[in-house]
Amino acid sequence: MARGRVTRLTACDVRFPTSLGAHGSDAMHTDPDYSTAYVTLETDAEDGLKGYGITFTLGKGTEVVVCAVNALAPHVLNKDLGDIVGDFRGFYRQLTSDSQLRWIGPEKGVVHLATAAILNAVWDLWAKQEGKPLWKLLVDMDPRTLSSCIDFRYISDVLTEEEACEILQKNQAGKKEREAQMLTQGYPAYTTSCAWLGYSDDRLKQLCTEALKGGWTRFKVKVGADMQDDVRRCGLIRDMIGPEKTLMMDANQRWDVPEAVEWMARLAEFKPLWIEEPTSPDDILGHAAISRCHNRVIFKQLLQARALQFLQIDSCRLGSVNENLSVLLMAKKFGIPVCPHAGGVGLCELVQHLIIFDFISVSASLENRMCEYVDHLHEHFKYPVLIQKACYLPPKDAGYSTEMKEESVKKYQYPDGDVWRKLLAAQGK
Amino acid sequence: MARGRVTRLTACDVRFPTSLGAHGSDAMHTDPDYSTAYVTLETDAEDGLKGYGITFTLGKGTEVVVCAVNALAPHVLNKDLGDIVGDFRGFYRQLTSDSQLRWIGPEKGVVHLATAAILNAVWDLWAKQEGKPLWKLLVDMDPRTLSSCIDFRYISDVLTEEEACEILQKNQAGKKEREAQMLTQGYPAYTTSCAWLGYSDDRLKQLCTEALKGGWTRFKVKVGADMQDDVRRCGLIRDMIGPEKTLMMDANQRWDVPEAVEWMARLAEFKPLWIEEPTSPDDILGHAAISRCHNRVIFKQLLQARALQFLQIDSCRLGSVNENLSVLLMAKKFGIPVCPHAGGVGLCELVQHLIIFDFISVSASLENRMCEYVDHLHEHFKYPVLIQKACYLPPKDAGYSTEMKEESVKKYQYPDGDVWRKLLAAQGK
Repeated sequence: MARGRVTRLTACDVRFPTSLGAHGSDAMHTDPDYSTAYVTLETDAEDGLKGYGITFTLGKGTEVVVCAVNALAPHVLNKDLGDIVGDFRGFYRQLTSDSQLRWIGPEKGVVHLATAAILNAVWDLWAKQEGKPLWKLLVDMDPRTLSSCIDFRYISDVLTEEEACEILQKNQAGKKEREAQMLTQGYPAYTTSCAWLGYSDDRLKQLCTEALKGGWTRFKVKVGADMQDDVRRCGLIRDMIGPEKTLMMDANQRWDVPEAVEWMARLAEFKPLWIEEPTSPDDILGHAAISRCHNRVIFKQLLQARALQFLQIDSCRLGSVNENLSVLLMAKKFGIPVCPHAGGVGLCELVQHLIIFDFISVSASLENRMCEYVDHLHEHFKYPVLIQKACYLPPKDAGYSTEMKEESVKKYQYPDGDVWRKLLAAQGK
Repeated sequence: MARGRVTRLTACDVRFPTSLGAHGSDAMHTDPDYSTAYVTLETDAEDGLKGYGITFTLGKGTEVVVCAVNALAPHVLNKDLGDIVGDFRGFYRQLTSDSQLRWIGPEKGVVHLATAAILNAVWDLWAKQEGKPLWKLLVDMDPRTLSSCIDFRYISDVLTEEEACEILQKNQAGKKEREAQMLTQGYPAYTTSCAWLGYSDDRLKQLCTEALKGGWTRFKVKVGADMQDDVRRCGLIRDMIGPEKTLMMDANQRWDVPEAVEWMARLAEFKPLWIEEPTSPDDILGHAAISRCHNRVIFKQLLQARALQFLQIDSCRLGSVNENLSVLLMAKKFGIPVCPHAGGVGLCELVQHLIIFDFISVSASLENRMCEYVDHLHEHFKYPVLIQKACYLPPKDAGYSTEMKEESVKKYQYPDGDVWRKLLAAQGK
């Protein structure tokens, strides 16, 4: 049983200066500092447990998300955790439909990222109180309770609560076996660590060699800034990994629709499994494949329009577990494989819970499915991901793996942490 | 010629406690405090002119938009105004595509509202320096220069720069006559002031009577919260205005798609000209008609999908004049009449410039066209709208009519202005 009254909600601006090494660079984000608006939730329960929530940002603007978390805080403070999770749909609706705040969204951009950070903290705390990793909390929940966490507003034309329950009910069979399978083999992953756009060819080769040695068989490369550059880099990687292994490409919204068609025709010879974010994330009709949408309404239409072949959920862009549940269920209904987006700060830690739950309780399949992996910044987390033979092993610690090490939060706090004070002083700021 | 280097950019949180009188209330926004993130732009030019920009918000969250304006400020400070407007497309792209900040958008929600506020201030300043009201600055600009203000990224599949120029070029003929027509007759308006959702029937009747006396022939009513209530209120208004006058309805995103269909079937007897925002603003495929989109990519698809019969631009939700230009031109290409959204704080003041320009230089037609009008808060503006026989008369003062009275800004500043200090003290805050 969830317990305690929320007595404190704080949000902290934590930034890692990843731009110094061109880590995470792509055609649209040339110098990201991987960052997070880090939420801590405290209650008056005697267990002393705290919930931690993150949302992922790229440096500048994290302070804007922190500001939005504070604006949403009155909806959380002084509430009983039992009342929150007992009517999780109502609580979700309350956060996303504040009659004044929804104007600056709704359910997109800054406020939605802030909503995700808060809800991620709630889920972390709930799972900790139940003594279970989040994926297990979800797997053990009965279909009716799980569905009651979802806000079906704006998606009831393609997925009703009854359909959601049916899907979950049908998959009760075989759950035990799939859970056992996950615990021994883990969930298949692919790596994006080798081929950020700002990496030199030498570095790319070296990282690729290491990844192959480490057992990786699926690779993603960033493209979209310069055609000749892309041809050379994709050729180089395809040569190194050979014709059998899997290659994905990601243009990070760089192109117009005609440009995307032209560019991909040229890169087709390297046999990409998919092209990710060819154009604006808002452009449903212009998409042949897309990812990282900002809410369930956009995903709904991409599915309706048959505009994607792979669906990439994001644990921090969507409204936490609640909204991801609705997207996983819609993907199941439309028969589209889910291959989550990860990387950043903590996205791997969080999304592994969702995709493992998806396999056990929703999709019941690994066909054409894999979860992104990036080998960065895990050292700052108290319960970092565990990769074995290019697979995610299910976390065993209670919670949503969102908690960061206290010293990391302190050191990388912006602008007052040690790391930033030194960096900013060096830049004369 | 634009002149001066930007030396100062400030953003101010100004809120009007409109919720006390249920002004502006609708099915989703039950208690809005009409507010604005108010931007002031100063340069070192000797003319001493300042640019003022607003974006419209509903109270809570205005501080988040102010925070985002500050995050964008480094892109504006120390720039020459001549360089900014001399490469306006480039400047627009820079603001909307900051490699770190775009993550918390892109081009939607908080950052896009902040972008609009800043760009509105730039346009106001430019027009003031040219000594022209904004609509006239636009009307006098040659097609090539006008097009160079537009970022065609993500819309080039339906509108190219060449096409934009052609549309503008073709309309050079007859411009003088249309300008003269505007100056004498003004642009037709409709009123939303009579029928906010929170108004009593008596109040509604009284306001409707007054509006009829004032010469209004087109009325909009808020619907969507309660069916019986809607039937009664719509019936009451239709009775008062008679069968010939025009009635529009607005559900403010309240419904799911099936709900919208059911609800509108019931309200059809009152012969609405349109139903506005029946469902989520992101739901292109679910729409038969929609409004107030957050960027040009959404509008592009609504036009492509033939999902709207009337297009309602917003001067502060879209990325200022620049992005509105692209939407006006796309609407022209698809033959869809533009009927702007207005009201709020200052939206009437701003959007009149755009729609008057549209008539003179783009649409060249008044068929099925009218601009929303709400009779609120104009007293806080230095150059308030002028309505004559239910028409907007073209503003004659230089600028974008964005400038507010200094004393209003001071008095309504949140939380330190006189009005708020008293109100918050009364609420024990």
